[in-house]
Amino acid sequence: MGNTFGHLFRITTFGESHGGGVGVIIDGCPPQLEISAAEIQLELDRRRPGQSKITTPRKEADTCEILSGVFEGKTLGTPIAIMVRNKDTRPQDYDEMAQTYRPSHADATYDAKYGIRNWQGGGRSSARETIGRVAAGAIAKKILRQVANIEVIGYVKRIQNLEGVVDPDTVTLEQVESNIVRCPDAECSDRMIELIEKIGREGNSIGGVVECVARNVPKGLGEPVFDKLEADIAKGVMSLPASKGFEIGSGFAGTLLTGIEHNDEFYIDENGEVRTVTNRSGGIQGGISNGENIILRVAFKPTATIRKEQKTVNKGGEETVLAAKGRHDPCVLPRAVPMVEAMIALVLCDHLLRHHGQCQLL
Amino acid sequence: MGNTFGHLFRITTFGESHGGGVGVIIDGCPPQLEISAAEIQLELDRRRPGQSKITTPRKEADTCEILSGVFEGKTLGTPIAIMVRNKDTRPQDYDEMAQTYRPSHADATYDAKYGIRNWQGGGRSSARETIGRVAAGAIAKKILRQVANIEVIGYVKRIQNLEGVVDPDTVTLEQVESNIVRCPDAECSDRMIELIEKIGREGNSIGGVVECVARNVPKGLGEPVFDKLEADIAKGVMSLPASKGFEIGSGFAGTLLTGIEHNDEFYIDENGEVRTVTNRSGGIQGGISNGENIILRVAFKPTATIRKEQKTVNKGGEETVLAAKGRHDPCVLPRAVPMVEAMIALVLCDHLLRHHGQCQLL
Amino acid sequence: MGNTFGHLFRITTFGESHGGGVGVIIDGCPPQLEISAAEIQLELDRRRPGQSKITTPRKEADTCEILSGVFEGKTLGTPIAIMVRNKDTRPQDYDEMAQTYRPSHADATYDAKYGIRNWQGGGRSSARETIGRVAAGAIAKKILRQVANIEVIGYVKRIQNLEGVVDPDTVTLEQVESNIVRCPDAECSDRMIELIEKIGREGNSIGGVVECVARNVPKGLGEPVFDKLEADIAKGVMSLPASKGFEIGSGFAGTLLTGIEHNDEFYIDENGEVRTVTNRSGGIQGGISNGENIILRVAFKPTATIRKEQKTVNKGGEETVLAAKGRHDPCVLPRAVPMVEAMIALVLCDHLLRHHGQCQLL
Amino acid sequence: MGNTFGHLFRITTFGESHGGGVGVIIDGCPPQLEISAAEIQLELDRRRPGQSKITTPRKEADTCEILSGVFEGKTLGTPIAIMVRNKDTRPQDYDEMAQTYRPSHADATYDAKYGIRNWQGGGRSSARETIGRVAAGAIAKKILRQVANIEVIGYVKRIQNLEGVVDPDTVTLEQVESNIVRCPDAECSDRMIELIEKIGREGNSIGGVVECVARNVPKGLGEPVFDKLEADIAKGVMSLPASKGFEIGSGFAGTLLTGIEHNDEFYIDENGEVRTVTNRSGGIQGGISNGENIILRVAFKPTATIRKEQKTVNKGGEETVLAAKGRHDPCVLPRAVPMVEAMIALVLCDHLLRHHGQCQLL
Repeated sequence: MGNTFGHLFRITTFGESHGGGVGVIIDGCPPQLEISAAEIQLELDRRRPGQSKITTPRKEADTCEILSGVFEGKTLGTPIAIMVRNKDTRPQDYDEMAQTYRPSHADATYDAKYGIRNWQGGGRSSARETIGRVAAGAIAKKILRQVANIEVIGYVKRIQNLEGVVDPDTVTLEQVESNIVRCPDAECSDRMIELIEKIGREGNSIGGVVECVARNVPKGLGEPVFDKLEADIAKGVMSLPASKGFEIGSGFAGTLLTGIEHNDEFYIDENGEVRTVTNRSGGIQGGISNGENIILRVAFKPTATIRKEQKTVNKGGEETVLAAKGRHDPCVLPRAVPMVEAMIALVLCDHLLRHHGQCQLL
Repeated sequence: MGNTFGHLFRITTFGESHGGGVGVIIDGCPPQLEISAAEIQLELDRRRPGQSKITTPRKEADTCEILSGVFEGKTLGTPIAIMVRNKDTRPQDYDEMAQTYRPSHADATYDAKYGIRNWQGGGRSSARETIGRVAAGAIAKKILRQVANIEVIGYVKRIQNLEGVVDPDTVTLEQVESNIVRCPDAECSDRMIELIEKIGREGNSIGGVVECVARNVPKGLGEPVFDKLEADIAKGVMSLPASKGFEIGSGFAGTLLTGIEHNDEFYIDENGEVRTVTNRSGGIQGGISNGENIILRVAFKPTATIRKEQKTVNKGGEETVLAAKGRHDPCVLPRAVPMVEAMIALVLCDHLLRHHGQCQLL
Repeated sequence: MGNTFGHLFRITTFGESHGGGVGVIIDGCPPQLEISAAEIQLELDRRRPGQSKITTPRKEADTCEILSGVFEGKTLGTPIAIMVRNKDTRPQDYDEMAQTYRPSHADATYDAKYGIRNWQGGGRSSARETIGRVAAGAIAKKILRQVANIEVIGYVKRIQNLEGVVDPDTVTLEQVESNIVRCPDAECSDRMIELIEKIGREGNSIGGVVECVARNVPKGLGEPVFDKLEADIAKGVMSLPASKGFEIGSGFAGTLLTGIEHNDEFYIDENGEVRTVTNRSGGIQGGISNGENIILRVAFKPTATIRKEQKTVNKGGEETVLAAKGRHDPCVLPRAVPMVEAMIALVLCDHLLRHHGQCQLL
Repeated sequence: MGNTFGHLFRITTFGESHGGGVGVIIDGCPPQLEISAAEIQLELDRRRPGQSKITTPRKEADTCEILSGVFEGKTLGTPIAIMVRNKDTRPQDYDEMAQTYRPSHADATYDAKYGIRNWQGGGRSSARETIGRVAAGAIAKKILRQVANIEVIGYVKRIQNLEGVVDPDTVTLEQVESNIVRCPDAECSDRMIELIEKIGREGNSIGGVVECVARNVPKGLGEPVFDKLEADIAKGVMSLPASKGFEIGSGFAGTLLTGIEHNDEFYIDENGEVRTVTNRSGGIQGGISNGENIILRVAFKPTATIRKEQKTVNKGGEETVLAAKGRHDPCVLPRAVPMVEAMIALVLCDHLLRHHGQCQLL
């Protein structure tokens, strides 16, 4: 059941990196939404490999096909199935990994859990699985825009120790997409790209932090207790490959402040709306959106698969060494941006429907 | 539906801080487990208010009653309902809060979402809701111990900028419980207690970080993709009141390393087991436990409700000031320890049953 | 997880017949609904034992307490917990059943499944469990009335071979409640009561059929494929104790007609609404309500627990005989009426919220 | 969310009759099960149109492709996606139905619910959706056989008023498949085929009853209260197109007996097993399997789409007449047999995993 996400707006993904294809079923989508494969493709193109010199050279167009749920350009309210065929597969690159576990990868744990594993290219643990998420996220984003002009914008905040200066309240998608590392700080992004190229040449890898903002989220989304908005978002982003940490609003740094310093004082704005002066809450209080911008960060570790030689073991229980072949991203961050956005859009869309169902009926 | 957590081992909590009571239904518990109200009470006593000079003086014995699901000292396999009556309630302390929103609390967002709110003592947003989690967690812990001697031990790692030195591989419950702040670094704990007392006297509050370790977790728990073990844990702890961040293993700091520095090399131990030399993964790889200790950290912000005067607004849409009455913790960390443990135990127990159901049948 | 029902409007019940009590948590209830314990009690009184000479003489007032989720007479949107204490318990009546399995009862299967059983009065398999359903159903009914004046009215259609003549389009609650057997055919009801009394005196039992109608259900409720409205209703009523069959609209008898005879032709009524001339569909087509009355029937077998002597076996694996003690209904039908209504109201309410969430958002 | 079925062994189907294709994702399948597309195809061939002179002449090979979740002939434990492309589509046959509602079909209710509809061939309401169920059912059946030699065998019990004589305890798949109507009473089956052909020639349709038996089901499957085994089965089969009624064991006829006549007395068989002399319970007591054969019946109405002229209305709100074009089954029963089997196999498989997870862990 671990392949389904969401409650009312619910997605189920499928596929290994080297099987027939990968994809997603979206159940619970509102009917009569205009959507096209081309719109979905825009987001997939932000995620696909081979998009720039700092991503894996694996050449996948990742062209999506809508199998069901859309008719004459509009959603039917029935399940939307979207599929992407696997194309540029080179299983032979993974021959060695059939036997030898990549350190800090999922090879060994899949074998431990299932006693079997599609060792070609990571199988189900491949980041290729996120194609389904990003495709579904494209539809979620469209609903969010249509209902309340909600925008979800992610960007690379930090690569290793290089941190960009970005204003989450004003950053635009155009700024994010203006460079291949997706850090809307022009000066810093150049240095990030240089660093990633250098690390890649060394056969090594690096990580960093993606920051994401959701703007125009109406007050009232999220359910107290277990399905707090930040809890569902945390689950969503922590289920992305390579993520190691999550924080919202003030996050870990907020623990250094006292209550009087940390609390967001309320005021009444020019439209008579209850607003907060500061936004250390990150747009969510008590698990429910408060109308301020939702701001969060996700830590991504350095890519596990590297060309440098490492000590490891094989299926037969012998110690050995591995220098991975295959084509891998030296840094997942640029491609992680649309993934993070997708997960947040999916959570917001689900909660939008849930809130409407429960609290806007009577 | 936001009040249910877990898939096979599933809990549903109920209750406001000032209604008839709070509690939990546990569904899916294995039958024939020996359990008593006294064992559950031990965990509730670690959570209850008034347990020490650095927690709220609200006096609640929080005595639990098992209403169903246990017969002659053993679980029946049917729902276990556990209830705690509310006793030491002083709704009058909250009169002002009926109208005036506490900054960074849930008052305003509950009103925005539901258009109605039990303003007495936080209502459903009160930390009192966690009684149900901790009671259920006590049962989950017993199952974990019985199945595989799994231990879940949390402790205060940091209060504001005071950080304890603790070895997660060896720390014991006795060490954690040896002082009232639940930091098993004796020297640091004294300074933490002093700091909390000082801050409390000022009518202010502080936050910090809880660290938690799960030991003896068998390989294979967790489901790839959305229900990765760390994703479900992240959701669990991010649904706790006042939590603002989560990290596992190397977490945010891990983003400063390169792949070759960060990867956990494998080796074969003396028992022929596949093990890792380091544990930057925090015991989980690809969403599945790898047999190493699961280690994670949760950031808790300073308590929102403070006695210091703050600017705020009221329900009528007017700006005003508030200096909260009522009895509040100057620092939630000591009482958050059993809550964090409970959430992790619940996730592990659910995944233990799920793994057994899917992967140990054929 | 088998103790939870519904998706957006979701209930979880707990309790054995002879433990601390039984009850329900309702999650997902719309906020600001006026509700009182007295309103819920009205439905519970229709279900309770000892209500008439043809039900079990077990004396249970079944007085409910609302533990949470309601404040100053209105729902909060948070979980509504309702509890009924067990009072008139006589575990000694069940001493023999601790060892000896009642034929066609759940005693043997509970032991087979769980290896343990609360043998006092049926434990979790007691019809007492339905208290939680009926309490939750009372709230669901109120929502249905408020949203669209939807009425759910059940009645006894047949006791053994005595079948009443009832018009589902016009029958009223008052007519149903006008006699103790809840068959709104005055003449037939007298004969039914006589028959039940006679059978009860013999220590035997009988069954029959409950029919139920839901009127004013708006078009569009129900989800195609698995959660068809009739599928969810079927599950709901087939989960009631002693139910053996379900049919909707023309049901089994409809299989004797040809298509041209069976199809419900459409016409446009005086208000311009699409209507059907006949209603063999029973108000649902393709799993979705069509605006006509939803009409269904549920078969209930004769009560399993009887005073007549029967061959059986005991836990020790020996053949023996049993003549049950304890106080049992000779016929469950009169008390099953509010249970059937409750399950249908719960399904309709859940689908009302789901439909609103998915299809009335954009 | 209405397109997902099951809790641990969970399927999600997608597809309209005239889009890119139909299919299913199976999540939670145990790993290392040997399975091939050919085995799945065997079941799909029993379901496909054009298989005999008494089914619709629509020619669909319904060849399935396994997209994921199977590697080198074995299940991976990850989602199994199976797709069947739509081939022999003639949307022009449905031109009229774009505007005109077929009586007793889903056309009008889909429009009422969603405000949009894929009118080509029934869209999502087409029986073509059941391809996903039958494909998943093939895998469920294999697991059932492997774990406990469980067999699920359905057959046509009655066509209109022609009822076959079949012994559920001994009937074999070969007997069922020995004739095109799938009634293992050779004499009666001939008359059934004649009747269906005659009705088909008239442009009319007929219904009937499918009976199904599950043998060798171990004791202990099913969860008391809402997820009783018969309740989940009822939901499963009542979600099939054209089903109007369900009964288990004695069913509706059982309501004519008294308790002493109806109860299944227990005895100890030669192996020391607790067994019942009769099986009016239909293999389930208290919602839990008791080890006897599970026997149930499903009523299917006459096919709604017929060539005879009927009064109806169109989208524009005008009354009109319709004589359906397209290629339709005059009787759904022969093809419904594998569908009923699939739903029962899915329910049993899910409960097998659930029972193993909860009750066979400690």
